[in-house]
Amino acid sequence: MKVTILGNNSALPAFGRHPTSQAVTLYGEVILIDCGEGTQNQMQRFGIRWRSVHHIFISHLHGDHYFGLPGLITSMSLLGRTSPLFIYGPASLQGIIDSILGVSETELSYPLQFCPLPAAADVLVDNAYFKLTSFPVEHRIQCFGLLIEKKTRGRRILPDRCKENNIPPEAFESLKAGNDYVSETGEVIANGLVTEEGPQPKKYAYCADTRYTESYLEVIKGADAIYHESTYLKSDEKKAVDRFHSTAEHAAKIALRSEAKMLYLGHYSSKYKDLEPFEEEARQIFPNSHLTVEGIGYDI
Amino acid sequence: MKVTILGNNSALPAFGRHPTSQAVTLYGEVILIDCGEGTQNQMQRFGIRWRSVHHIFISHLHGDHYFGLPGLITSMSLLGRTSPLFIYGPASLQGIIDSILGVSETELSYPLQFCPLPAAADVLVDNAYFKLTSFPVEHRIQCFGLLIEKKTRGRRILPDRCKENNIPPEAFESLKAGNDYVSETGEVIANGLVTEEGPQPKKYAYCADTRYTESYLEVIKGADAIYHESTYLKSDEKKAVDRFHSTAEHAAKIALRSEAKMLYLGHYSSKYKDLEPFEEEARQIFPNSHLTVEGIGYDI
Repeated sequence: MKVTILGNNSALPAFGRHPTSQAVTLYGEVILIDCGEGTQNQMQRFGIRWRSVHHIFISHLHGDHYFGLPGLITSMSLLGRTSPLFIYGPASLQGIIDSILGVSETELSYPLQFCPLPAAADVLVDNAYFKLTSFPVEHRIQCFGLLIEKKTRGRRILPDRCKENNIPPEAFESLKAGNDYVSETGEVIANGLVTEEGPQPKKYAYCADTRYTESYLEVIKGADAIYHESTYLKSDEKKAVDRFHSTAEHAAKIALRSEAKMLYLGHYSSKYKDLEPFEEEARQIFPNSHLTVEGIGYDI
Repeated sequence: MKVTILGNNSALPAFGRHPTSQAVTLYGEVILIDCGEGTQNQMQRFGIRWRSVHHIFISHLHGDHYFGLPGLITSMSLLGRTSPLFIYGPASLQGIIDSILGVSETELSYPLQFCPLPAAADVLVDNAYFKLTSFPVEHRIQCFGLLIEKKTRGRRILPDRCKENNIPPEAFESLKAGNDYVSETGEVIANGLVTEEGPQPKKYAYCADTRYTESYLEVIKGADAIYHESTYLKSDEKKAVDRFHSTAEHAAKIALRSEAKMLYLGHYSSKYKDLEPFEEEARQIFPNSHLTVEGIGYDI
């Protein structure tokens, strides 16, 4: 699972930083989290293919988290997309999308399925490859976080070894599940000889925009990595609280208390040019804290 | 009057080209024409200050002409704008703006006045400095062009010469109007001694998006410069007609028949990387035809 940062700034574009968007890649699929203005350009720039995107999650309806969505969905249509696109967001996003498509008399070339986010923490998608769970956070307007759980696909088949041992493809599912192979003549071939350890399950939690709250600690507990917004430094803590945002220290406390293995920071206020102090403040509390940089893909 | 091109591509961003936007500067004021996604970034990049923008014209509601508007108007508010902003556009734009501000519970820091465009050619603004006239063009959905007429401000005062001749500032308005100065003692000072020729009136017409139509030739007649969309080359004329767009040749015919002095081309389809053929095709019919390039400010 890889998280590519397409935008890591807060509301106003500044210092070459863009509004929020992240592309989470797993099993060749991209889950897009938020879609600030210019996201389609950032995708082009950093090699995120729209064809791989089937799920878009919009955390809330402040413009810096979704003003790039109308452009992306219409571009996909102009480019002839046919596969369905699922958009998860606050309920009133649907009316806005409908109006925008309506006034331009646009009929999309593909089915767009809008799924309003449930008020309480709940599962949005649960398939063989991943599970998506949204949960409410605390912002000035209704806002949600997202937990992405990448599933294991069992043990990985070693095709050459299977061939050497005359194991037919019909037996692969059983091998993936960890069973030994028993041939028609009763010969047993140990699983470990013809498979290796497969991809591990992983958990990534996206927590933005929110003020400090422990309300969702249980949902994201033990994540391999969390991204938590850190709009301000500690010197601006009052501003953070008043505006329903967090400081780097708040983010670090959430990482610590949710027993995360790694913390990524972002959604920096446009007042800060130099970002190093964010990392420094967070590391005082949670040493494995890291600034995010646009265009970098972080392996989870 | 200067026209700075912020975006000159058609719907899909391509080859580093952006969706439509132009900033027309006159008397220190900026009139923004269309506002595709990313316009606020292009303004920053090319030094167009939002504080100078008081009038925004949106030609029609295809996304590549207005998806940057919500971001721009909210950024202006975050930056503390207080002066009124006038937006002229198709009537249904108002509902979209209201929804977007409503769901984010945004109260703008400044008054936003929305003015629906009239169905027939009509004057939108007429002040001491300029006059704006919109006119219908022919596109797949309702769409409008814009004529900007920069007014003369009379003759330009030469302050040093006035001082030498003891002419008080109270007399300047009369001098600007071209009158000689007559002192209290009856001495006559010729206007030409203490003034010089002032800024000339200019006309700039923006014609996009539209298929070839002569319906508005009278409105734009004799413009110092027109911008006319040229989405396609002649080899794609059928496509242009089917999609209510124009070719470079169509644009040149409008320039010729409206007796324009200069033609600027833009809104290039993303299928073309090389744009030289647009200029070549247009010049066959109207020699003073020019490609537009993003970031360049064209003096009208």
